[in-house]
Amino acid sequence: MGSFEAATAVTFAGDGPEPGWDRYSGEIQPGWDYAGATNGGYLMAMAARAMAASCGNPPLSITCHFLRPASAGPAEVMVESVRSGRRLSTMAATLSAGGTDIVRVLGAFGDIVSEPVLTTLDAPTGASFDECLRDRVDDDDRPTTASGPAFLDHVDIRLQPGDEGFARGEPTGRAEMAGWFAFRDGAPIDPFALLFAVDVFAPSIFNFSGATLWVPTVELTVHVRGIPVPGPVQARFRSAHVAGGVLGEDGDIWDRDGRLVAQSRQLALMPR
Amino acid sequence: MGSFEAATAVTFAGDGPEPGWDRYSGEIQPGWDYAGATNGGYLMAMAARAMAASCGNPPLSITCHFLRPASAGPAEVMVESVRSGRRLSTMAATLSAGGTDIVRVLGAFGDIVSEPVLTTLDAPTGASFDECLRDRVDDDDRPTTASGPAFLDHVDIRLQPGDEGFARGEPTGRAEMAGWFAFRDGAPIDPFALLFAVDVFAPSIFNFSGATLWVPTVELTVHVRGIPVPGPVQARFRSAHVAGGVLGEDGDIWDRDGRLVAQSRQLALMPR
Repeated sequence: MGSFEAATAVTFAGDGPEPGWDRYSGEIQPGWDYAGATNGGYLMAMAARAMAASCGNPPLSITCHFLRPASAGPAEVMVESVRSGRRLSTMAATLSAGGTDIVRVLGAFGDIVSEPVLTTLDAPTGASFDECLRDRVDDDDRPTTASGPAFLDHVDIRLQPGDEGFARGEPTGRAEMAGWFAFRDGAPIDPFALLFAVDVFAPSIFNFSGATLWVPTVELTVHVRGIPVPGPVQARFRSAHVAGGVLGEDGDIWDRDGRLVAQSRQLALMPR
Repeated sequence: MGSFEAATAVTFAGDGPEPGWDRYSGEIQPGWDYAGATNGGYLMAMAARAMAASCGNPPLSITCHFLRPASAGPAEVMVESVRSGRRLSTMAATLSAGGTDIVRVLGAFGDIVSEPVLTTLDAPTGASFDECLRDRVDDDDRPTTASGPAFLDHVDIRLQPGDEGFARGEPTGRAEMAGWFAFRDGAPIDPFALLFAVDVFAPSIFNFSGATLWVPTVELTVHVRGIPVPGPVQARFRSAHVAGGVLGEDGDIWDRDGRLVAQSRQLALMPR
């Protein structure tokens, strides 16, 4: 079992307070945070695992509202079966920790089938995984002491050359962040890992403004459109519209064969 | 009061079964359907009105899962206050009719402020509202008997020249549908009307495939990014990826001054 799968595992813990509700328990692991706050995609993936276990299918479309930050410790996921259909199950869930609600999730679960009949979303023709800039190593492949999210110990995020400029005060001027994602332990990227992968890159707005202030996500919706083939996935995030202290960001993820496997869209707050 | 506002009005009907829950009653009106099934955006707007009434703010980000079709008749919206914050309130709701759940909604509500600091989403440079093709009138401005959704009696949807080709078996070959939206009674387009406007155009896939089969929406998320100035709004919908019997469609809406006011994304099922 990969480190991400183990860190987001949940266990059935009994029936919920109403018919059609199930309780799951999990453990928010240390090391998947940024400055103590556990990554949002990680929390969404843990909730999604409980929802998927309850209905027997992976997430197709899933929306997560982030209510409060969480840190390492025991968590509970209360899952509600909203509707069970032939092709799809609609599920709702609340992940709580220390008796406080952390995220609220709503999603449709069902078979994920690839075979595109139409796509205008081609993978970017940028540098390959091997050519992209590696984080946390220097030119001689030695680990650096660069600061950053703790979860970089688990994931290998490689930015397209230039897109890392924001970190040294040289933003590209375009609100775009692209690159590759892989688990350091080589674990396959399944639908739950895709929910995490869409939330681990630095905000694309950093390359527009140069500012690197925290932009808390209000809502994140992910459509899982395919199961990646083995290997790293390629990702591109763009902010198309920032207004009134509110930021939108769209993400697209392709597998190593260039097939679209996920689309994300989030609404986040800009610091005022 | 405009016909849409009246048709989606809700009334506080008492406390819900738990603290922080409110009940609202409404009436799904006839005439807002397609072949008897009430428009999904209409149902989402009715639920959003109850959620907004409960928290005192309009929707910023709202996700609706469509569980079953509904037709005209009494409806109830059960609203749950998930989190009440300084800038945002997170609200959940279920709209039911005849004792059956119809839609499940999750959203963040708060002040909508325009003033873009970054936008790469410019309004399409197509035909103006007056130049676009008018539905349901012939060349001499006389009403036609063209079939179509009943709600066309309430809304004036004008497609860009060419984009109406699907209806006569001449699709453009591009999965795009663009044009303008206005209420026939001239009512202003508020955030609730935007939730409806993103769901009234024919699916953009019709211009790719030429097929006009029903594509039921599984999930629709709308980000309200501005309050439109008076007048019609301009809209563009595109399907970028269709695979495994699942269709994604993105929509963007601008006001008459060319400011982005809403973005939508939906996942829908293709007939198998």
